[in-house]
Amino acid sequence: MLDLIIIGAGPAGITAAVYAARKRMNLLVISKDVGGQAASSGDIENYTGYQFITGPELAQKFQEHIRKYAVSLKEQEAVTEVAKTGDTVSVKTDKGVYEARSVIIASGKRSRELGVPGEKEFKSRGITYCATCDGPLFSGKPVAVIGGGNSALDAALQLVNIASRVYLVNITASLPGDEIMRQKAEAHKLLQVLNNTQVVAITGDKFVKGIRIKKDSQEELLAVEGVFVEIGLLPNSEFVQGIGKNNFGEIKVNCRNETNIAGIFAAGDVTDVPEKQIIIAAGEGSKAAFSGLRYLAEHKF
Amino acid sequence: MLDLIIIGAGPAGITAAVYAARKRMNLLVISKDVGGQAASSGDIENYTGYQFITGPELAQKFQEHIRKYAVSLKEQEAVTEVAKTGDTVSVKTDKGVYEARSVIIASGKRSRELGVPGEKEFKSRGITYCATCDGPLFSGKPVAVIGGGNSALDAALQLVNIASRVYLVNITASLPGDEIMRQKAEAHKLLQVLNNTQVVAITGDKFVKGIRIKKDSQEELLAVEGVFVEIGLLPNSEFVQGIGKNNFGEIKVNCRNETNIAGIFAAGDVTDVPEKQIIIAAGEGSKAAFSGLRYLAEHKF
Repeated sequence: MLDLIIIGAGPAGITAAVYAARKRMNLLVISKDVGGQAASSGDIENYTGYQFITGPELAQKFQEHIRKYAVSLKEQEAVTEVAKTGDTVSVKTDKGVYEARSVIIASGKRSRELGVPGEKEFKSRGITYCATCDGPLFSGKPVAVIGGGNSALDAALQLVNIASRVYLVNITASLPGDEIMRQKAEAHKLLQVLNNTQVVAITGDKFVKGIRIKKDSQEELLAVEGVFVEIGLLPNSEFVQGIGKNNFGEIKVNCRNETNIAGIFAAGDVTDVPEKQIIIAAGEGSKAAFSGLRYLAEHKF
Repeated sequence: MLDLIIIGAGPAGITAAVYAARKRMNLLVISKDVGGQAASSGDIENYTGYQFITGPELAQKFQEHIRKYAVSLKEQEAVTEVAKTGDTVSVKTDKGVYEARSVIIASGKRSRELGVPGEKEFKSRGITYCATCDGPLFSGKPVAVIGGGNSALDAALQLVNIASRVYLVNITASLPGDEIMRQKAEAHKLLQVLNNTQVVAITGDKFVKGIRIKKDSQEELLAVEGVFVEIGLLPNSEFVQGIGKNNFGEIKVNCRNETNIAGIFAAGDVTDVPEKQIIIAAGEGSKAAFSGLRYLAEHKF
């Protein structure tokens, strides 16, 4: 019987693990990867203490940090169920079942899909959800980034250094991302912002050849070979049943990262924390670890 | 009229400033120092992304981070009053008055005093509240650290490398600090833990020569030349009137870092956030900046 299972190893999960390990909790981390969304971020300039670091570099720092402690880490394991019976929380994965007194769910978010014809067929054949990971494949080719928030801007600003031309296809009237990134994007010669524009379909043969876009009810075919979808995220919370979630599927937590079930805590982007940021997720992970510790102490486990 | 004034430049204030600057808010940071308590911390092993960094080094990283942005910073200025009239928040300091639409209070905490005879007289004559700052002055001399929590353990573990002998004088039956630090402390040859022990007075002539301690109603004089007081912290919240505080004087905030006064936010150790940690304070600072931004947008300032 473990003290604590942490699901996820992004900024929230890693920070929770570092704190729990330092408190000598008997813990297990289960995650499909280490670093979470941070690992696929481009340039990070707002993680306090690092003026500038790339996503993969920060994920590497996280990885080194957790490996300093004797924490069991089950990687590439997908959690399928979390259930509490009596004082035991059991976590089912595609490879086994683990039991603990407490659980911190820090499973983060994943990319939302466009839901247009062609998206499924051309996945990994020109359509991607990670500019950092797949950007280099499109060297010298025209690409489109779909979206207008910070993630889309970040992707577009990475791609101008790689692609021959970058279209930023944004459904709203103006880019909703940070002013500082918006200005960089709008000023760039290789980048063209298409506001009020919707993607209707992805077209191609074996690989993507273009996207059909619509503006003011007029359709047009844009010739691109890469499509980077950056239209938001969905919480990885489907495996959690009987826990309070909001309308977006995010797990509801209070200021102490407690869910509605005693002994089950949640932290980071999978929760309804008002903002999704690396530094915030890290702080929330730390708080969740303290709450887990407090729960164990109060119940004298 | 500024968009935002941030009071304090520790982990919470700096992170709030980085986020606010990136959102192009017209802001001013007022602080007596940069780095806050982090600057006087010893070894930091739980700031995610840095496996190991000293307090002054992390404070330096924070300082560099904020200087990257064109943020006005009033240093060595003490805030004496925060008051809201209509839609304007005015911040009085010992040097002037500043006005803004919103304020984030991130003024942190300061060391609690022992309140025993001799403490006032021997301040800076052997009594100190910062092992990192003043430890090197006691090279080769016997010293006492008062307290038993993580700060006291951290101070004691720094001092074993400097002093000839370190007494850890702890009022409770066992050290309440982290297991990992407790073990390090208890195993160290030069360090002696005195549990169930109270400090009654500080004695000396021009400088500290000893402390009078009491255990089981028996008093004893311990010969030390340095006394490091690490018995907890008090929130720097006296200058804030009319804002909800808890019994410890901490400013009450909700999960969005809002106080009971619209437009006045608070973050970090000065608030009732359940845990006081650098990574948590940083996350809270980021959340407060978003809340400030949201407030300004909603009020169309």
